[in-house]
Amino acid sequence: MNTYVNPEPARPTGRGLSPEQEAVESALVEKVVASFDACGNPRLKEVMGSLTRHLHSFIREVRLTEAEWGAAIAFLTEAGDITDGARQEFILLSDVLGASMQTINVNNEAYQDATEATVFGPFFVDDAPHVELGGDIAFGAPGEPCWVEGMVTRTDGTPLAGARIEVWEADEDGLYDVQYDAAKRSARGHLFTDENGGYRFWGITPTPYPIPDDGPVGRLLGAVGRSPLRAAHLHFMVTHDDARTLVTHIFPEGDPIGWHDSVFGVKQSLIKEFARQPPGTPTPDGRAVDGPWSTVRFHIVLAPKSA
Amino acid sequence: MNTYVNPEPARPTGRGLSPEQEAVESALVEKVVASFDACGNPRLKEVMGSLTRHLHSFIREVRLTEAEWGAAIAFLTEAGDITDGARQEFILLSDVLGASMQTINVNNEAYQDATEATVFGPFFVDDAPHVELGGDIAFGAPGEPCWVEGMVTRTDGTPLAGARIEVWEADEDGLYDVQYDAAKRSARGHLFTDENGGYRFWGITPTPYPIPDDGPVGRLLGAVGRSPLRAAHLHFMVTHDDARTLVTHIFPEGDPIGWHDSVFGVKQSLIKEFARQPPGTPTPDGRAVDGPWSTVRFHIVLAPKSA
Repeated sequence: MNTYVNPEPARPTGRGLSPEQEAVESALVEKVVASFDACGNPRLKEVMGSLTRHLHSFIREVRLTEAEWGAAIAFLTEAGDITDGARQEFILLSDVLGASMQTINVNNEAYQDATEATVFGPFFVDDAPHVELGGDIAFGAPGEPCWVEGMVTRTDGTPLAGARIEVWEADEDGLYDVQYDAAKRSARGHLFTDENGGYRFWGITPTPYPIPDDGPVGRLLGAVGRSPLRAAHLHFMVTHDDARTLVTHIFPEGDPIGWHDSVFGVKQSLIKEFARQPPGTPTPDGRAVDGPWSTVRFHIVLAPKSA
Repeated sequence: MNTYVNPEPARPTGRGLSPEQEAVESALVEKVVASFDACGNPRLKEVMGSLTRHLHSFIREVRLTEAEWGAAIAFLTEAGDITDGARQEFILLSDVLGASMQTINVNNEAYQDATEATVFGPFFVDDAPHVELGGDIAFGAPGEPCWVEGMVTRTDGTPLAGARIEVWEADEDGLYDVQYDAAKRSARGHLFTDENGGYRFWGITPTPYPIPDDGPVGRLLGAVGRSPLRAAHLHFMVTHDDARTLVTHIFPEGDPIGWHDSVFGVKQSLIKEFARQPPGTPTPDGRAVDGPWSTVRFHIVLAPKSA
């Protein structure tokens, strides 16, 4: 395919437009919005109309050049080329633009002191192994042992027994099990809270790792001087019949990446102290650990279903 | 890849947000915009900042649900899957959202009575055959013969001799040569204006045809009740060392598609009378034509290079 690119630059941003030019540009916006008038699905019509208005506002505001338009088409094309069953460049793009996190914000409004949500990420699988309370979700994944414990309650403080907790995390090499092999299951598991809403398990102390950065999204981050590193984190998804599902992470206090998280997932309330224990410190369940380990408490508060 | 989708709907559009929720959402926008602060390329920083603001405004305005976000990711993924050397679904997407046409508007501001620009489209090739003035660019492509003539002038009316005119069009079956075979060359050519700025050639009378609609863009058009048909048109690209390059089409008056053009390329000033001639009507150059033919005049006015 040949693409002609106008070699001349668009009018510099901020230079005034003639009323005629303003009229041509805004007439086009109205024409495109009106093209969705016959849509029988009112929600689709609303979404496409709003998308059209914001997309055109962007093009007009920056006076997008034809070369820049061409670069955007090439970027999306390359994102499509690298995307397959194991790699999702469009989600990475949404993540690094904060669009994933904003969607989470919009769909998980703050409710009293319910635990805040954050991005889901692409590494959840729905068949993680079950572990008993106090069990180990590492399943051999390399990393410093971490004892995680806490409670799941309602916003009024009453415990939620039988809540299902899914946890998953990268190993100390920054990789999830499925990045080695789609069938591998380690550093993930699910467990259920006891009759007092309590839970506890062994995992591994989270460490920062880069999002996959050998594609166009990685090049974009490089071009704007941003790091591909995600703040260290441990994923949780907590479900209970009687409460709003929570998808979140906890982040170790003092992580040098922290607020520079490449996908904007960090929230103050989700930063927790992962207390480092010197080698030989007795463990909560008497397990023998070689070398240092850490421990963290995470009290999970679920909003009501209707919130 | 597994994707968890929050089954609960986002807050309905228009329902008021708490000041805390507004603060969370706008803080994220500012954080993402600030992530581009270290970008050494001021233009890239400007473009990414504006893109971020408009993208987040869209998500917040429609209260995008997680299921809708997932549908958008799936749409882009499918667009990537169908795109290859001969098919460009991302350009089609830009076209049907009017983004291509708006980019053309932004880069080709109205200048006095210079001929207006419209979309370039994906079917130009840079090695179209040369034809003499009065020659035939059809090269056997099926369609009703059409005699096209006119002049190329500056906005002050002075003729532009030696202007290069590239013309290309679909055949009467709605297909461009390269859609049959990447190496095929028909219904396209280039010629040069004479010393009086005049030009003339035989082509074929344009007819409406659909943009490729067997992919996600076609399904989107179906879902919103829009036709994939492009208004009938004949492409021109006109270059002269001493003038702004013009990329445009002309559209036959009375085309039932016309203003419903799926890519919003039609402008009033580009609609021309393609006068239908009954069989047997003498042709301008004495060529024998079986059956009806048409004729159109198109006066092309180029803006100055600096406009």
